[in-house]
Amino acid sequence: MTTREECLELDSIDPIASLRSEFSLADGELYLDGNSLGPISKSARAAVDRVLGEWQGELIRSWNLFGWMDTPLKLGDRIAPFIGAKAGEIVVADTLTFAIAKLTLAALEQRPDRHVILTDEMNFHTDIYILDAVANYAGRPITVKTINRNELAQHLNEEVALVEFTHVDFRTGEALDLAGITRQVHDAGALMLWDFAHTTGAMPVDVTAANVDFAAGCGYKYLNGGPGSPAYMYVRTDWQDKVNNPLPGWLGHARPFDFEITYEATKGIRKFVTSSPSILALAALDGALEVFEKTTMTEVRKKSLALTDLFIELVEERLPGQFNVVTPRDHAKRGSQVALAHPEAYGIVQALIKRGVTGDFRAPDIARFGFTPLYLRYVDVYDSVEHLVQVMENSEHQADEFKVRNAVT
Amino acid sequence: MTTREECLELDSIDPIASLRSEFSLADGELYLDGNSLGPISKSARAAVDRVLGEWQGELIRSWNLFGWMDTPLKLGDRIAPFIGAKAGEIVVADTLTFAIAKLTLAALEQRPDRHVILTDEMNFHTDIYILDAVANYAGRPITVKTINRNELAQHLNEEVALVEFTHVDFRTGEALDLAGITRQVHDAGALMLWDFAHTTGAMPVDVTAANVDFAAGCGYKYLNGGPGSPAYMYVRTDWQDKVNNPLPGWLGHARPFDFEITYEATKGIRKFVTSSPSILALAALDGALEVFEKTTMTEVRKKSLALTDLFIELVEERLPGQFNVVTPRDHAKRGSQVALAHPEAYGIVQALIKRGVTGDFRAPDIARFGFTPLYLRYVDVYDSVEHLVQVMENSEHQADEFKVRNAVT
Repeated sequence: MTTREECLELDSIDPIASLRSEFSLADGELYLDGNSLGPISKSARAAVDRVLGEWQGELIRSWNLFGWMDTPLKLGDRIAPFIGAKAGEIVVADTLTFAIAKLTLAALEQRPDRHVILTDEMNFHTDIYILDAVANYAGRPITVKTINRNELAQHLNEEVALVEFTHVDFRTGEALDLAGITRQVHDAGALMLWDFAHTTGAMPVDVTAANVDFAAGCGYKYLNGGPGSPAYMYVRTDWQDKVNNPLPGWLGHARPFDFEITYEATKGIRKFVTSSPSILALAALDGALEVFEKTTMTEVRKKSLALTDLFIELVEERLPGQFNVVTPRDHAKRGSQVALAHPEAYGIVQALIKRGVTGDFRAPDIARFGFTPLYLRYVDVYDSVEHLVQVMENSEHQADEFKVRNAVT
Repeated sequence: MTTREECLELDSIDPIASLRSEFSLADGELYLDGNSLGPISKSARAAVDRVLGEWQGELIRSWNLFGWMDTPLKLGDRIAPFIGAKAGEIVVADTLTFAIAKLTLAALEQRPDRHVILTDEMNFHTDIYILDAVANYAGRPITVKTINRNELAQHLNEEVALVEFTHVDFRTGEALDLAGITRQVHDAGALMLWDFAHTTGAMPVDVTAANVDFAAGCGYKYLNGGPGSPAYMYVRTDWQDKVNNPLPGWLGHARPFDFEITYEATKGIRKFVTSSPSILALAALDGALEVFEKTTMTEVRKKSLALTDLFIELVEERLPGQFNVVTPRDHAKRGSQVALAHPEAYGIVQALIKRGVTGDFRAPDIARFGFTPLYLRYVDVYDSVEHLVQVMENSEHQADEFKVRNAVT
């Protein structure tokens, strides 16, 4: 069994250990919830301060002077390498839900003879809500089928226009087969839209190699862009001339300052910008992305797998039989989180939070722990499991105060 | 003719003169573009700093600890008195374009036997783009007619489902008859959606007295919420149980943390929240709104009319016959800006910017100047006109550098 000393040793030889100092985490903070909201980095704070200063000093003139108008594209290009996209294929704007709404309507228009959207019954619920909603607005009858993703093959046929899956399951942390599923969908003549909420910044993927059509992700999880940080949209280059932004606005117009009453989309990914994004929100994300430039997604992935391996090993050895580890052991199928199923998961998560170990609960029975290599140490994993052992030994999770579930965490 | 000394005298007796110190405007800054991007206030900066600290210190736990989840409603309630709305009728989220998209689709669903949307051919272009776009997604054929707003009566009939007008014309600054038009639209059995982009924070209106159905406005103009500050949506109380959010998300669900795969809207205005708004962006707006609590919209309006009267008077007396003042003289029909038409308006605006007087150009021939009583002084109006006189006398606007139009201002 790995000892605390061995964890300290692993930290001492960790090539990206120093990146923790880019963040402002309190010493006692055992933060295993970067998959829900990443922490603030010093560069994110500096970028927000910079934009506040630009706004103060140059007011409206800042849009030109500091290139605010291009920020959605500039940030897109910085995110591109994380998912194997090319420059000019990603734009940052809006929320993930709107990104999925836009890309879904855009995709449906490209398959006018088909009328089915397939999605995962275990998908994050808001994905399903927005697919159901836009199905009403597609201009023709569309059926959204929520399926068992492992039975995709039997649902794929000439009726299917689009498949929308989340690449890493938000509950279990299972990473799906990006290339294999995309190929399978294409073989059936359908288009593929991936939700990378739990992928981007957590593990490398290659949308170009997998020939992904469309994707979207969010800025506030592994990218550490701050609460409610904007989303991004990926549209493969060869689609960009063909697809329309179904919810267009003046910032995606070919000549936005000519104030023409007829919409004419500009070229490229910029047409997916609808209206003014929050420049403060973009700044925080901009600064947050700087941290990633001091490492590579390969390094990040290597440490992520080591951290999740370690957590699984320690939980199983120190708490044998008490939790069902629902996250796949197979590295190829694992995101950057570990999910432990337990009927008392809610109380367990709350008792851990009280001890300074922040994970989160996902109904009905999942204690979810995110492992983010930029700032987590091996010894943090060890100490978190030690707290978990004590919670269970002392039955702290059965305290009255945790009997009623409330709000977010 | 009003003299500079008289302007200084007016400033000395201005009851809200001290509010200028809430902002961080440079001394030489003659900022007549608060109708495009309001300046940063000290309280906006403080609010952003506060949220950065919350994020740093409490991470994901902040959503509960600091009430982040309720910020969209809390800010809505702070904006409510500016437009005569009641508590619980406004939510802040998304961009103005999305707000109009949502409210338009919601409204169309309430008039299923009608198929026409009327809008103003002089409307801000992005309003027309998004109306045209959502008309494709309404689930039935919808026609968007861009009309001369003065001919509304002849277009209103039993085919019209919705009328969408911007209350204050972004070019001319003309304020439309809110109550009269709303009544006219209702008399024809149609619904009314007002865009208050150039109204909110600039002049008081009373949506309750006018029985307005839906409205939307933006945070970055007269509310001073910062670049790309979120928008707001107003839904009259008695509509809230009937209308649906057409682009729903988990934050509008009755039980967001039960992760149900079927959407069930929560009660009230909160259902119009789709997904996580940028808490940083909301914070800036929150802080910006604090300034308004030191005055009333009645005071703001009184000074706004005095400032615009003064500007018109000085331009006409000092530059007789050179500009066509397209903004109405009638106070009841005036927003908080003055638009001067001139064939060389672009160069004039650029030459003024070079002199430290920031207004903006709106194609094809409008030099637009916003007058925002929270921080503008009477003497600023005087000095701005003095610069304009010198620009025209020296033909500075005809300089080669202003021959080619570029980008934003």
